[in-house]
Amino acid sequence: MGGGTFQVLQRNKALIEKRLGARLEIKAIATRTPSRAASWNCPLELVSTNPDTVLNDPQIQIVAELIGGIEPAREYVLRALKAGKSVVTANKELVAKHGPLLRAVADENGVDLLFEGAVGGGIPLIKPLRESLASNSIEEVMAILNGTTNFILSKMTREGANYSAVLAEAQDLGYAEAEPSSDVDGFDTQYKLAIVAGIAFDTPVELSDIPREGITRVSARDIEYAAELGYAIKLLALARRHDDDSLELRVHPALLPHSHPLASVNEAFNAVWVRGDAVGETMFFGRGAGALPTGSAVVGDLIEAAKNRLRGVSNLDHAPMHKARMLPFEDSRTRFCVRMQVKDKPGAIAQIAGVLGDCGVSIESIVQKKTEHGAAEIFWMTHHTTQRAMNESLAGFEGLEVVREVSSVLRVEGD
Amino acid sequence: MGGGTFQVLQRNKALIEKRLGARLEIKAIATRTPSRAASWNCPLELVSTNPDTVLNDPQIQIVAELIGGIEPAREYVLRALKAGKSVVTANKELVAKHGPLLRAVADENGVDLLFEGAVGGGIPLIKPLRESLASNSIEEVMAILNGTTNFILSKMTREGANYSAVLAEAQDLGYAEAEPSSDVDGFDTQYKLAIVAGIAFDTPVELSDIPREGITRVSARDIEYAAELGYAIKLLALARRHDDDSLELRVHPALLPHSHPLASVNEAFNAVWVRGDAVGETMFFGRGAGALPTGSAVVGDLIEAAKNRLRGVSNLDHAPMHKARMLPFEDSRTRFCVRMQVKDKPGAIAQIAGVLGDCGVSIESIVQKKTEHGAAEIFWMTHHTTQRAMNESLAGFEGLEVVREVSSVLRVEGD
Repeated sequence: MGGGTFQVLQRNKALIEKRLGARLEIKAIATRTPSRAASWNCPLELVSTNPDTVLNDPQIQIVAELIGGIEPAREYVLRALKAGKSVVTANKELVAKHGPLLRAVADENGVDLLFEGAVGGGIPLIKPLRESLASNSIEEVMAILNGTTNFILSKMTREGANYSAVLAEAQDLGYAEAEPSSDVDGFDTQYKLAIVAGIAFDTPVELSDIPREGITRVSARDIEYAAELGYAIKLLALARRHDDDSLELRVHPALLPHSHPLASVNEAFNAVWVRGDAVGETMFFGRGAGALPTGSAVVGDLIEAAKNRLRGVSNLDHAPMHKARMLPFEDSRTRFCVRMQVKDKPGAIAQIAGVLGDCGVSIESIVQKKTEHGAAEIFWMTHHTTQRAMNESLAGFEGLEVVREVSSVLRVEGD
Repeated sequence: MGGGTFQVLQRNKALIEKRLGARLEIKAIATRTPSRAASWNCPLELVSTNPDTVLNDPQIQIVAELIGGIEPAREYVLRALKAGKSVVTANKELVAKHGPLLRAVADENGVDLLFEGAVGGGIPLIKPLRESLASNSIEEVMAILNGTTNFILSKMTREGANYSAVLAEAQDLGYAEAEPSSDVDGFDTQYKLAIVAGIAFDTPVELSDIPREGITRVSARDIEYAAELGYAIKLLALARRHDDDSLELRVHPALLPHSHPLASVNEAFNAVWVRGDAVGETMFFGRGAGALPTGSAVVGDLIEAAKNRLRGVSNLDHAPMHKARMLPFEDSRTRFCVRMQVKDKPGAIAQIAGVLGDCGVSIESIVQKKTEHGAAEIFWMTHHTTQRAMNESLAGFEGLEVVREVSSVLRVEGD
């Protein structure tokens, strides 16, 4: 990320100076790996391993934090803000976990804290949401925020391949990390949703406010059934404001109808779909990661911070961050689709439907396919129901002798 | 538009006050049709038919111009700017024709001229392009900027219907004007492209810089052939910067491959696809028209203008607006696809290919279908060639006895 930022600053130096009316000059770079900085063709006298060369230099007015993780990034950002420097960061984990604190310290010191690069790579997102759509009461945000999982799900869909085979291939190609949990278990998406929802709904968001489920249990079979019914499966970040002003947040794989704009966002692309009371539906699309796209956002923020300093102002956060009431997960309502293995004998479906009826869950459609040795696979979709009723139904199936296995439970959104 | 703006201001009053840290108060409304303002439930003491109630009131700090057309909008905007008021406008024609002048007057007076609502309805576009992507050298913009024509082309595609039938239906439904020329002949798209390209490429753009062709000659048959080859037909606004820094601008119907993100933008939606040297490809999507979406953008700009006034600053345009060199239309290069009626006799294709060969145009694919009475329809696609070579080819066909009619000439982009 340091390399991408450096490259954008170098490449578009003249253009940026023309647009800003001033020059952005790199005064110092602190890094634990100076050899990497050397590989950017970066003048070596700028590079040091000592963070104080950046943090203690009173001439430096803006600091870009591109370290990642919590410490020492958090300490450095706080020191920079307290020293009256504006800070630009692309650190999603830091902003998700400590954003409200950092923003408060920035405000106290009359400087900017900008983080466009923390979500969606170079896609203009934080600024449009906070500024261009400031006239809207945002009703809903649905987003694909992780390129790795979207790449995996797209490939599974295209090739009918299973999760583990595609993950291995993605790892070979460098699209997925050797330790893929941050992506495939949804942590990365959860961080980004916390940031986006915080801005869209003017509230602090804790990670514990966001129930999270990854894609490791999505199978080729789920994708195939979904496609038959006209849906794509995506790792979805969802934020929805209800009429009583409670906020519902979740991250999980979901079926989206092919007609939904997010359904055709494939490969490593990201997109954020927003519904506002005035704008209606709008969507932002682009590359969610990569050195240059993220560099695009970081340098965009550097220009913004510089423009503000030149004018002697900062982007004060006026919105008092009262915490929104979070909808308990059990009360969240959606449609579910469930794939299960049952014994192929008379009355199997009746028993399952009986459990669902007892729990107040009604079925919208059901597909049954014979498999082998007296077994059958059934795949059914419910009407809207609560997470609680679905949990009760799943518990009820445990007592049914005809149910061999509940293979997957997915949610359906965007209809 | 006045109604949409008023409604957004009323509905989200508390939210806007919270986000801005100040209240936006409507001091006066001047309109030629006070009865319409009355229908918004607007306090009648605010309404007058005299523009001076707005322009001469020293307490009014921000003016929204929602009249449309050139005069008297231009005069009022200039008076407001010269009186030190910031101006928000959604008037695409005014900004396209007089934007550089108006921006200069705004800068001289230290006030803002904002026009997010002039392009793409409520889609955040002008601000993201100018600010979020300021670190990029923009290479290309391709956009669908007119909802009416996109609605018509989508319906023609879905139903296999012809242009005139769908236009009549769209007029009945109120999706198209009784006098549809502004939409279907591409003027509206041309205005909007002039605005977007001016910002993306830091240059003044004259309407005469943008060759323009509408959709009136697109037939169901063209759409059908295009679909067979894997393309959708859209009214495309295109701006492309070449390596020699010349700028190519055009508005015309074009074939886009189904894999291109713009190809699945259907119905009355708009989208702007941007390629920058750092961000890569990114796209903005949403409703390009309508009272509330446009009101979303206008009120977003009002909030921005108010924020700037509260901080005593304005969005100074630092970029010196040197006019880019425009690529002569004859030099523009693209792929063409041509549908023509020929006599069904031996050597017809050879004669046509001969003309193309003489003009240096090479054919990528060709489809011939028998029609009736010894006639045949052929549909062929070229490799990249210049507009000049295509014009020469078309002139050459006029001397061929086998050619009965050139039914359509379309361009292919986005491959």
